[in-house]
Amino acid sequence: MLVNGKHHITIWTEKKYPSIIYTIDQNLLPHKFEIIELKSSSDIISAIKNMTVRGAPLIGVTAAYGIFLAAKEAYAKNLNINRFDNYIYRKSEQIKSTRPTAVNLFNAVENSLNQIYRERTKVKKVEAAFVYAKYLSDYEINSCRAIGKFGLNILKNILKRKKDKTINILTHCNAGWLGCIDYGTATAPIYFAHKEKINLHVWIEETRPRNQGAGLTAWELMHNNIDCTVITDNAGGYVMQKGMVDIVIVGSDRTTFNGEVCNKIGTYKTALAAKDNNIPFYAALPVTSFDFKIKDAMKEIPIEERNGKEVSHIRGLYKEKIINARITPQKCKVRNFSFDITPSKLVTALITDKGIIKPDVRIIKKLI
Amino acid sequence: MLVNGKHHITIWTEKKYPSIIYTIDQNLLPHKFEIIELKSSSDIISAIKNMTVRGAPLIGVTAAYGIFLAAKEAYAKNLNINRFDNYIYRKSEQIKSTRPTAVNLFNAVENSLNQIYRERTKVKKVEAAFVYAKYLSDYEINSCRAIGKFGLNILKNILKRKKDKTINILTHCNAGWLGCIDYGTATAPIYFAHKEKINLHVWIEETRPRNQGAGLTAWELMHNNIDCTVITDNAGGYVMQKGMVDIVIVGSDRTTFNGEVCNKIGTYKTALAAKDNNIPFYAALPVTSFDFKIKDAMKEIPIEERNGKEVSHIRGLYKEKIINARITPQKCKVRNFSFDITPSKLVTALITDKGIIKPDVRIIKKLI
Repeated sequence: MLVNGKHHITIWTEKKYPSIIYTIDQNLLPHKFEIIELKSSSDIISAIKNMTVRGAPLIGVTAAYGIFLAAKEAYAKNLNINRFDNYIYRKSEQIKSTRPTAVNLFNAVENSLNQIYRERTKVKKVEAAFVYAKYLSDYEINSCRAIGKFGLNILKNILKRKKDKTINILTHCNAGWLGCIDYGTATAPIYFAHKEKINLHVWIEETRPRNQGAGLTAWELMHNNIDCTVITDNAGGYVMQKGMVDIVIVGSDRTTFNGEVCNKIGTYKTALAAKDNNIPFYAALPVTSFDFKIKDAMKEIPIEERNGKEVSHIRGLYKEKIINARITPQKCKVRNFSFDITPSKLVTALITDKGIIKPDVRIIKKLI
Repeated sequence: MLVNGKHHITIWTEKKYPSIIYTIDQNLLPHKFEIIELKSSSDIISAIKNMTVRGAPLIGVTAAYGIFLAAKEAYAKNLNINRFDNYIYRKSEQIKSTRPTAVNLFNAVENSLNQIYRERTKVKKVEAAFVYAKYLSDYEINSCRAIGKFGLNILKNILKRKKDKTINILTHCNAGWLGCIDYGTATAPIYFAHKEKINLHVWIEETRPRNQGAGLTAWELMHNNIDCTVITDNAGGYVMQKGMVDIVIVGSDRTTFNGEVCNKIGTYKTALAAKDNNIPFYAALPVTSFDFKIKDAMKEIPIEERNGKEVSHIRGLYKEKIINARITPQKCKVRNFSFDITPSKLVTALITDKGIIKPDVRIIKKLI
């Protein structure tokens, strides 16, 4: 999507089998737009861990590039083939341990390893890792495009019954192109509708503690000329009560076959408010975010608990510098739960790259 | 309650008919504990407007002292009795226009004016204004004490069925002694239970945009040795989903006879989460927060919309200075709705100074 009028994606290389992976430092947004270079599997691990890159699809692609860089490192070390595979495996375990909740990370790593293991020579293995990373990146772009097209139909249907011809969409966190490679998941229908000149306005819940709504979603929508307003997470229920929201669209970091949506903390409360006000609530996601293995989302999906400093302190811009300001008393206990689970009873439907699906195990299993 | 081991109330005078009203500057908390002097009705108006004092009961008492200071000013100006009353009336209108949502403010001003108007001499009028302010302050303290005793019974009942003997309470915003004169409303049962050595733990939702939870509730509970943990507003639903909350207690800025609770923005979402998890949800309030006139809370209660800077920027401590750091992109649109309405279907009961009341018009009208 556009940044200062120029098209960007979130992760790219300048040539085949490169030494450098380029990405946007999302910790500096919305205050500074800076492209950074990831040159080793360790760089990749840090970037995922400290959330330089974030968002389930982008984490997956970054992880795949991490495996590729690990393969290159193993190659440069001139290891025998067993040690070569072993080096990559050890790195893959480190990559998988960066963040626990989004399933894309694990799938990307496993799939990349499978591609590597089926090759016999080191050169072929390095190639296979690169080809998979590039494939996954393109695949995610296409998925988001498909989500956009399916979601557009939902917005068009809402438009039919709207008198003032402006659709009010509410979203939580950033399931935008910044969290993906391009288009985004929750934002894809918005960008497609905007292209068709449908009048839109987006309420963005700021999404404490890391403010990906206020910082990232607002930033990317503004750069793409989408009318939007940031509100606190607390205010999401109020704007719904007041009839100022037509539809809620969020992303999903992991989705179960029962249609439960594990997404950024606060999604559950927002979904409850949508339900209470008869506002359709959609999660937009590539089918790769489904986790076949989960039977009980509440018990089985590991919910990341991040550093309490993200709660006790808030990052913002002060005198042109990005700083962390403390909001709690000193020595105050804090907990920082990062995701929650929205039960399927609150989900109108899932907007996937394979179509719009009711959150029902029979329907999901049929389509996936 | 205690601050650094010493008992404090939130607003006081050192003598009868004083020139100075003392209060705590709540904009500096939790970072600095500073007592400030209010010396004129204009000081009172600024203090309420910029939230140096806040919380429905405290706003009411501060407003009453504001009318007293206005009466003193009128007296000093040596006006004739008509102009004297007129001066106070004009000031009372300014005081009423400071904040629109909490009903205590209007009631305090009206009641004080009634006391003044029934007196014939200027000296008596000044006296009446002071006596009323002091009466209201004492009345609020007694109300909170009564709320605490009634609420304590609810906590004792929960304790009976708890195996681990620690009651987990969740609260939103600050309905603590800082928002009242002493004890608080939502916190009064907590302080009374603590005094009876009942094991408690309080989850505090930080309460964006002004973080009265993270800044004020955490501060006052810590100073009174209550075990507590700050979480984001978004995480309130999650801790309930995980079975980590036994009861939710919040305050109320205005309550209708139908049992609707108008309280700090985000209360509605929290109440929805409590309902969805079968967790009892109580609003604690003095009966003075009831508004007889409201028939349709959603349409009739004026919801304050404050400066957007409270959303685009967050106040915190950086290098020992209280600063405002920007979290949104420049030129980003924001809206700052300050209250929402929790429908009575989500309210288990109201903990009032007259007893625990179901949110039902027939029951409320009988008891009040």
